[in-house]
Amino acid sequence: MSGETHPSTHPPLPPTTEDDRVAWLRLLRSRRVGPGTFYRLLAEHGTAQAALAALPQVAQAAGVADYAPCPPGVVQAELRAARGFGAELICVGQAAYPAALYDLPDPPPMLWARGQLALLHRPAIALVGARNASSLGTRMSRVLAQGCGAAGFVVVSGLARGIDAAAHSAALPHGTIAVMAGGLDVTYPPEHQKLAQQIAAEGLLVSEQPMGLTPQARHFPRRNRLISGLAQAVVVVEAAARSGSLLTARMALDQGREVLAVPGHPFDARAAGSNMLLRDGARLVRNADDILETLPSHAAPAPSTSPAHGSPPPLRPQAHHTPRKTPHPLPKQHRPPLPGACAKPMRCTSKYCSASAPAPWPKIS
Amino acid sequence: MSGETHPSTHPPLPPTTEDDRVAWLRLLRSRRVGPGTFYRLLAEHGTAQAALAALPQVAQAAGVADYAPCPPGVVQAELRAARGFGAELICVGQAAYPAALYDLPDPPPMLWARGQLALLHRPAIALVGARNASSLGTRMSRVLAQGCGAAGFVVVSGLARGIDAAAHSAALPHGTIAVMAGGLDVTYPPEHQKLAQQIAAEGLLVSEQPMGLTPQARHFPRRNRLISGLAQAVVVVEAAARSGSLLTARMALDQGREVLAVPGHPFDARAAGSNMLLRDGARLVRNADDILETLPSHAAPAPSTSPAHGSPPPLRPQAHHTPRKTPHPLPKQHRPPLPGACAKPMRCTSKYCSASAPAPWPKIS
Repeated sequence: MSGETHPSTHPPLPPTTEDDRVAWLRLLRSRRVGPGTFYRLLAEHGTAQAALAALPQVAQAAGVADYAPCPPGVVQAELRAARGFGAELICVGQAAYPAALYDLPDPPPMLWARGQLALLHRPAIALVGARNASSLGTRMSRVLAQGCGAAGFVVVSGLARGIDAAAHSAALPHGTIAVMAGGLDVTYPPEHQKLAQQIAAEGLLVSEQPMGLTPQARHFPRRNRLISGLAQAVVVVEAAARSGSLLTARMALDQGREVLAVPGHPFDARAAGSNMLLRDGARLVRNADDILETLPSHAAPAPSTSPAHGSPPPLRPQAHHTPRKTPHPLPKQHRPPLPGACAKPMRCTSKYCSASAPAPWPKIS
Repeated sequence: MSGETHPSTHPPLPPTTEDDRVAWLRLLRSRRVGPGTFYRLLAEHGTAQAALAALPQVAQAAGVADYAPCPPGVVQAELRAARGFGAELICVGQAAYPAALYDLPDPPPMLWARGQLALLHRPAIALVGARNASSLGTRMSRVLAQGCGAAGFVVVSGLARGIDAAAHSAALPHGTIAVMAGGLDVTYPPEHQKLAQQIAAEGLLVSEQPMGLTPQARHFPRRNRLISGLAQAVVVVEAAARSGSLLTARMALDQGREVLAVPGHPFDARAAGSNMLLRDGARLVRNADDILETLPSHAAPAPSTSPAHGSPPPLRPQAHHTPRKTPHPLPKQHRPPLPGACAKPMRCTSKYCSASAPAPWPKIS
């Protein structure tokens, strides 16, 4: 036990030993432990080791019988796979951890990353959109990615077909981050193997999921919260009605990020989602300048001036995030609920639930 | 002289005799007399006849030498041409005069009209856009005109090629008004002769210009103020950058009308103007419902319930106009000056100038 009165109002200290790190990962990979539960357990029990020891009892109290935490062997295998892949583990509270994610109600306690870690500390713009994009859409994605990149912004996307791939490719020379829905070593879609390798070399691959995990439908919304979370603004380049990009846009709004969209003619169904966002108040994008204009830190720092991995650990090294300038443009009834902090019922039956809790610690400004 | 202390705060009484009518028209057609000057002269001198008698002296005081009012013969010829064309003269203050135009700072003192005069008293929506419209644009114009018409709104436009013609044609069965830049009997462009005849029969042709006048470039902005003035909302269906439709949209904003626009893909130059309006805050239109939603009097009265020509003269028979709900969405520097109330220098040198004056009378609500 830490003995602090309100331990949950401060970020946990990152693990300092290899044992700590393994215990953190075991706790995080334990069944029914999402980020919210992770932080509560850590705050209540002081260390991940203590939390792991208490976990079966906690589960029992929440009505879950026969509960066992994640076996050490599983975590050891994950660490081995990561070493083989050249991935690094970034823990919340460490200097390498992206400050932008502290805005989220459920920042991932640990992230796998491979590539240029310094990209996590540069201002970023997310470009998202349809997998089955039109040729206009992919062309626009390239133009915007190139323009944002040239202006010093990192382009964040999801490595999907269509808009995402076009954005990553065009932004490669300037810096791009692909947030993956599955394990860092599982390229999805498979045909983006070469693109993923390029990003791992020149850009950055990031995932909060265990190495080796094949992404399933439920992983994408959680991944999307990181795409918007890492960025100051989310631009929906092309999206049909009821597309995943709209969910990302709405999460972005709830995270206080700017939401922008590229219009299309109403007779083009592939623009129906973007037009809906525009009708609901998103800012209209015709070119990269339209994006850059909305951001306060228009003059983005050059990559070379970014804090490097291993520099002193400021919790919020750069206050480069845009507070939402206007009221939520989407009427309440149009906003889907955010994916819960924990994906399993424990969040509903346990005091360790964080689904409706505020951010685990107040913002340090 | 009328003997009233502040005659200009009330609309003038419409002419009651044929002599009055002729004098009104002579005053209005006199050189350098625009609507603003017309109202001031009438207010100061009580009758059009007295104003005509004073006009040479007024001109001299303003530094205009050798001034003569419009000769009676010119007006007699205009009245003859109008009779031949089947046009009716509608004077400000008369029951037939469209109440919507009282919102303008310079309502035309007299209008020529041919067709279904009752259309002037139904709620209306203006559809405007490019002459060299795309096929998507003209198709959208038809869809919107049909939808607005079916919902009980009169569709107002300018009889131009492209968006205008498509809007008029589609709205014909429900009611459409073509506001002409030249004389009522001068169809411009000439190839719209048949369309103009159909509108004269089933809809309404309107103009403030003398019969027989061939429209010139300077007449279009003044005409455009009537298109937006007659409507509750102006929808820019398709417009390139620096197009006349944008001027209409901006006049509409200054008149307190809703401005809406149909988006297009940013790579389509024909949508650049509409997208600019949307970026500046105009409401996005995907279909007729998007237009109707923005209007308070969504349930428009059926044509048969409209006050007919000749009914008692309420000055504002229907308070169906939308006050602007949001601040002017266009930054000051983007707003072109409104065409002045008078097109000639007299407005600058004379106390009869109304260019910067408020509406000639307070609104009667």
